[in-house]
Amino acid sequence: MLFFTQCFGAVLDLIHLRFQHYKAKRVFSAAGQLVCVVNPTHSLKYAPTRCAAAQESTEQGILPPCHHHEAVHDPQLVPCTCPLFSCPWEGHLEVVVSHLRQTHRINILQGAEIVFLATDMHLPAPTDWIIMHSCLGHQFLLVLRKQEKYEGHPQFFATMMLIGTPSQANNFTYRLELNRNQRRLKWEATPRSVLECVDSVISDGDCLVLNTSLAQLFSDNGSLAIGIAITTSKVHSSEGEM
Amino acid sequence: MLFFTQCFGAVLDLIHLRFQHYKAKRVFSAAGQLVCVVNPTHSLKYAPTRCAAAQESTEQGILPPCHHHEAVHDPQLVPCTCPLFSCPWEGHLEVVVSHLRQTHRINILQGAEIVFLATDMHLPAPTDWIIMHSCLGHQFLLVLRKQEKYEGHPQFFATMMLIGTPSQANNFTYRLELNRNQRRLKWEATPRSVLECVDSVISDGDCLVLNTSLAQLFSDNGSLAIGIAITTSKVHSSEGEM
Repeated sequence: MLFFTQCFGAVLDLIHLRFQHYKAKRVFSAAGQLVCVVNPTHSLKYAPTRCAAAQESTEQGILPPCHHHEAVHDPQLVPCTCPLFSCPWEGHLEVVVSHLRQTHRINILQGAEIVFLATDMHLPAPTDWIIMHSCLGHQFLLVLRKQEKYEGHPQFFATMMLIGTPSQANNFTYRLELNRNQRRLKWEATPRSVLECVDSVISDGDCLVLNTSLAQLFSDNGSLAIGIAITTSKVHSSEGEM
Repeated sequence: MLFFTQCFGAVLDLIHLRFQHYKAKRVFSAAGQLVCVVNPTHSLKYAPTRCAAAQESTEQGILPPCHHHEAVHDPQLVPCTCPLFSCPWEGHLEVVVSHLRQTHRINILQGAEIVFLATDMHLPAPTDWIIMHSCLGHQFLLVLRKQEKYEGHPQFFATMMLIGTPSQANNFTYRLELNRNQRRLKWEATPRSVLECVDSVISDGDCLVLNTSLAQLFSDNGSLAIGIAITTSKVHSSEGEM
């Protein structure tokens, strides 16, 4: 265990070293691991959306409408059917990847294990850091969000979502790992489907949650490195899909 | 990885099953692991103490006085030199174990890996769940605290402290693990010394932090099972001490 902790620590040190020298280069490898530098996505307007879980309709492959439980500033806001914070786009599951690549210019990376390096953690909430991860024949979306669930107390929420249906998502397990200064925090769970809406996952707190103080402990020079790994949790089902 | 997740899940299921039948029995074993049922310690008065880090004086082996930065209800409050919430006791390091056993009737358990089963998680903050853990020739204190760091938003904080000096504490690594409903959360860190005061560790957020929603996801029938493991992080130093 100690050996792996030290190895992961050494990888992160390499990452931070290379990051300082190659800040302009967005994707690089360090100690055999693919590292992606992820810049924040600025939210143009703050619309706190809390989506009702609409799982019963999600198997149809269309992103469900979300219900806004809280007062919003703009009465014309359309449903939050794009997983990105405050993006009004809606569409079928099959075109989510192309929407994210074309409209939001979100990178897509290949590989079972990658390192997500979120920059500018000091930016005020709400802010999203997002990347797509292509692995085991599917596309996953990692969302790191800084949000004030309680006014004046920003927190970081990290979750992995499958760009697929909830039943497909049940075939996988994702792991997010932070490792720095002799501290390690690891979260493992079944990914949720993007059809379930990222806002509801975060408002339920069913994800990796970091207080600002803990995020600072794991950050280096304003950047947070998150190791990501995806595995199949049901061998037979996942083999059938691949 | 999946194998270990399932094993730990199975152990927890056994624990919860046995817990329902043997609630009166405070310590039992399930699947070869020692399980300790820990009842909450009720705080008689609420005195939010934030201890100034007094590391420079802690190597002398006497618990340092803590400074109360916030207004407290009772002006006669004495320093929080006992690691227990709102206990006014103070004394030398050598007698902390006997104080905790005799005054607070805190159990002490032997074994490298144990399961801490905290009951009545619904009780209002502030509440402590505490156990001593004798392992690798030293005594450790596991403190789980429910506290409202932000008014109206109780959180759970879990940390392990060595009943010893900070330099002794540097020789160890502790791991706290929650595992339930296909979710796993693991925290690994170097234990802090009880001389550093548990209040400051919690106010710094340098521990496992759980929001109420996450604590509920990991709880079963109002009880939270935390797997605890302690290892030596410096082989030579720890060998010298054992």
